[in-house]
Amino acid sequence: MACEGTADIALIGLAVMGQNLILNMADHGFTVCAFNRTTSKVDDFLANEAKGKSIVGAHSLEEMVLKLQKPRKIILLVKAGSAVDSFIEQLIPLLEPGDIIIDGGNSEYTDTQRRCEYLRSKDLLFVGSGVSGGEEGARYGPSLMPGGHVEAWPHIKTIFQSISAKADDEPCCDWVGDNGAGHFVKMVHNGIEYGDMQIICEAYHLMKNVLGLSHDEMGDIFDEWNKGELNSFLIEITRDIMRYKDTDGQPLVEKILDSAGQKGTGKWTAISALDFGVPVTLIGESVFARCLSSLKDERMAASQQLSGPSTTEFNGDKTAFIEDIRKALYASKIVSYAQGFMLLREAAVKFNWNLNYGGIALMWRGGCIIRSVFLGNIKKAFDNNAELQNLMMDDFFREEIGKCQDSWRNVIATAVKIGIPTPAFSTALAFYDGYRSSQLPANLIQAQRDYFGAHTYQLIDNPGTFIHTNWTGKGGNVSSSTYNA
Amino acid sequence: MACEGTADIALIGLAVMGQNLILNMADHGFTVCAFNRTTSKVDDFLANEAKGKSIVGAHSLEEMVLKLQKPRKIILLVKAGSAVDSFIEQLIPLLEPGDIIIDGGNSEYTDTQRRCEYLRSKDLLFVGSGVSGGEEGARYGPSLMPGGHVEAWPHIKTIFQSISAKADDEPCCDWVGDNGAGHFVKMVHNGIEYGDMQIICEAYHLMKNVLGLSHDEMGDIFDEWNKGELNSFLIEITRDIMRYKDTDGQPLVEKILDSAGQKGTGKWTAISALDFGVPVTLIGESVFARCLSSLKDERMAASQQLSGPSTTEFNGDKTAFIEDIRKALYASKIVSYAQGFMLLREAAVKFNWNLNYGGIALMWRGGCIIRSVFLGNIKKAFDNNAELQNLMMDDFFREEIGKCQDSWRNVIATAVKIGIPTPAFSTALAFYDGYRSSQLPANLIQAQRDYFGAHTYQLIDNPGTFIHTNWTGKGGNVSSSTYNA
Repeated sequence: MACEGTADIALIGLAVMGQNLILNMADHGFTVCAFNRTTSKVDDFLANEAKGKSIVGAHSLEEMVLKLQKPRKIILLVKAGSAVDSFIEQLIPLLEPGDIIIDGGNSEYTDTQRRCEYLRSKDLLFVGSGVSGGEEGARYGPSLMPGGHVEAWPHIKTIFQSISAKADDEPCCDWVGDNGAGHFVKMVHNGIEYGDMQIICEAYHLMKNVLGLSHDEMGDIFDEWNKGELNSFLIEITRDIMRYKDTDGQPLVEKILDSAGQKGTGKWTAISALDFGVPVTLIGESVFARCLSSLKDERMAASQQLSGPSTTEFNGDKTAFIEDIRKALYASKIVSYAQGFMLLREAAVKFNWNLNYGGIALMWRGGCIIRSVFLGNIKKAFDNNAELQNLMMDDFFREEIGKCQDSWRNVIATAVKIGIPTPAFSTALAFYDGYRSSQLPANLIQAQRDYFGAHTYQLIDNPGTFIHTNWTGKGGNVSSSTYNA
Repeated sequence: MACEGTADIALIGLAVMGQNLILNMADHGFTVCAFNRTTSKVDDFLANEAKGKSIVGAHSLEEMVLKLQKPRKIILLVKAGSAVDSFIEQLIPLLEPGDIIIDGGNSEYTDTQRRCEYLRSKDLLFVGSGVSGGEEGARYGPSLMPGGHVEAWPHIKTIFQSISAKADDEPCCDWVGDNGAGHFVKMVHNGIEYGDMQIICEAYHLMKNVLGLSHDEMGDIFDEWNKGELNSFLIEITRDIMRYKDTDGQPLVEKILDSAGQKGTGKWTAISALDFGVPVTLIGESVFARCLSSLKDERMAASQQLSGPSTTEFNGDKTAFIEDIRKALYASKIVSYAQGFMLLREAAVKFNWNLNYGGIALMWRGGCIIRSVFLGNIKKAFDNNAELQNLMMDDFFREEIGKCQDSWRNVIATAVKIGIPTPAFSTALAFYDGYRSSQLPANLIQAQRDYFGAHTYQLIDNPGTFIHTNWTGKGGNVSSSTYNA
């Protein structure tokens, strides 16, 4: 056992992510104290994975706290929600002013905002850190997105940046911002992850159902795609999945139930987008696509009843269409990230966060589920113009979309005619076409709202002045003040 | 002034909706006591609109309460939020057990749930009632959607059903369900209203920008459409709006800023859909379309920079395409209502509400903003099968969609090629094609989630058993329990 006050940091919660993060810290020369509510897990861990490493155990929070250097640094990797609050309450009486509690779970950023305020009142420092990369990332280099009380950063920076992934020799970890900023950025990361997975699924669906490709053929295509602009962890594992055979030699993925689960962070991103009024449509559609997939029984029944289009045959050039699909995926991905950064920008305004968008791209560049070459291009876009209002307006991405758009349109038009759903490709294109429209038909919405609810409208030539028209000649002249249509 | 204890009901809040509801009640023979926080409004109202009618005023809540028959019935039509709570607090000490407070504002249903519980503890009855129809509806017959404490219903039923709109001689008002059910149904109504407005806008956009029709031509088309399956208040007012000329003889709608406002109920519907895991995609896209429209400055800048498709010319038959657009609108509308009723069904399960879906269709059939012939068909669908799982599975609607689908697909494919955004038409079709797919590509999502996060998956042939595969041969065997990707 280590002497009192010698451990650099403690970690509570020995599920897979917690164990792997501890091993990762130990690999980098830090002494870590491991604790778990069910203390037999501590013993198991010490006797097995942690054996011979700079890892000590504790069988009570008191013991754990005694073993830590000051200011004490304690990472919580427990189930998001009440378990985090419960450990915080148990830790408060054991800690001294300036000690640091770090929540590395997938907490809602609003909880992190609340905990920052609460622990400030207790003279303790709190950090809510996004941790991405799954088991593998936690073990060998995750993407870390810490935010909260900035005074904590100098004390944890070395540990965090040592254990994080590296991209172009830079750590995929930097201070994100005040209060809930770290968990907010992690939430948007996860939302983007939902989007990336959905657009890959749409490409897969089209190749399988429109072109009739085998899983081996698709494996080769994803392998090819992974050598170019789409090079990324998710394309890479999709290639592996396409090629993975069950014991009978058949592709395992084909046997998996097409009913997608979710744990909430994609949903939170879409809800935040709605709440802040930012059109993050691709993530929204991706979350809904998972919901629809889970209605397997209803879909089975409907497939017997609801008719499809009159022709479902593809008559084009297969090879050309594969390239079209790649471009549709790429263009949709650009839109999705543009939308994600729009949401970050709006949150920064709302919460007065000083977000470094290029830095966020770099944090996601390696270690995490959405890591990709693409994020390097996003980093460059913000390096070129830190004030860039929208990613699509960056020269590089604008030109990339331009090069993709005919293919993108062809893929969606084909899917629509043949009857294959491509909700994410479609909403991305609708967003692109809407965003580049100086004039949208929302003038009619405003006229309708004024017609039935006296909600008033503005004139193009005189914005800022709100006008009500008596469209029928029948309505009263009382203005609308409480009625919300 | 009326004697003590003679008024049938009181109403607090004399903005346009409140005044009109009072006049409506008076027209139906009820004596109404009017109150407003700024009491000069009471005097103005009594001296003008209310003159000669069975309307009395009060200058304090005490006076108002004294003038009411028991059990007292008091409608609040004040700004949703803290104003409602504030009046409730002021009323509690003035009321007796069994008295009834009715909130007719656009309150969030979660607030209504909370208030039901709170007023139950005070031995008072609470009703949260959706009120739709705008100024005109309130005055001459709104759609009313009351829910809350069911014991209140016998006391207010006569008044509510007298003043409500009628459709096929039946009142567009019935008891919805416990607690927040009335406001939930109103929220979904408003979400559907957002969807209806968006799909009309997309039709307008296509006719204007693809076909180059004039506003007079479009006025005639909407007039024509209003004679058939699409007959509805919103199509009717769109016709009027198309034809409405500014003083210079130009269509006024063309001069209105295309930046749509919103008050929140559409957003709440989409958020509830995400929260409950129901794919209400068309309302989601409609809310996001308003968000995008409001980014006018960004769009103006982007329109100079972002390129469109190589060809933007329409070479088809104009008349045929107009009919295609009508069918696209109609099919999208069927999907939107199917999604809305899916959300109601899920809420009923979640909150243990016994919702009468046909009854809800009837409540919306007249009086409210979404009133339409179409809702009569929905009523029939639920009359035929009260257990109908999805509106699209009803014989009538299934056949209608079948008849529309080639046109629907043609419109979207054309819009996609020409570069006109049709996010709602597109998401509706993607939903239709997804819902009728026995197999979606979500098997790949499950494989990906298991690959990077050990989230496990089920096999098609063995649902209910959750399996983890070591896809790389490298990962550990610790199962995923806290990590949420």
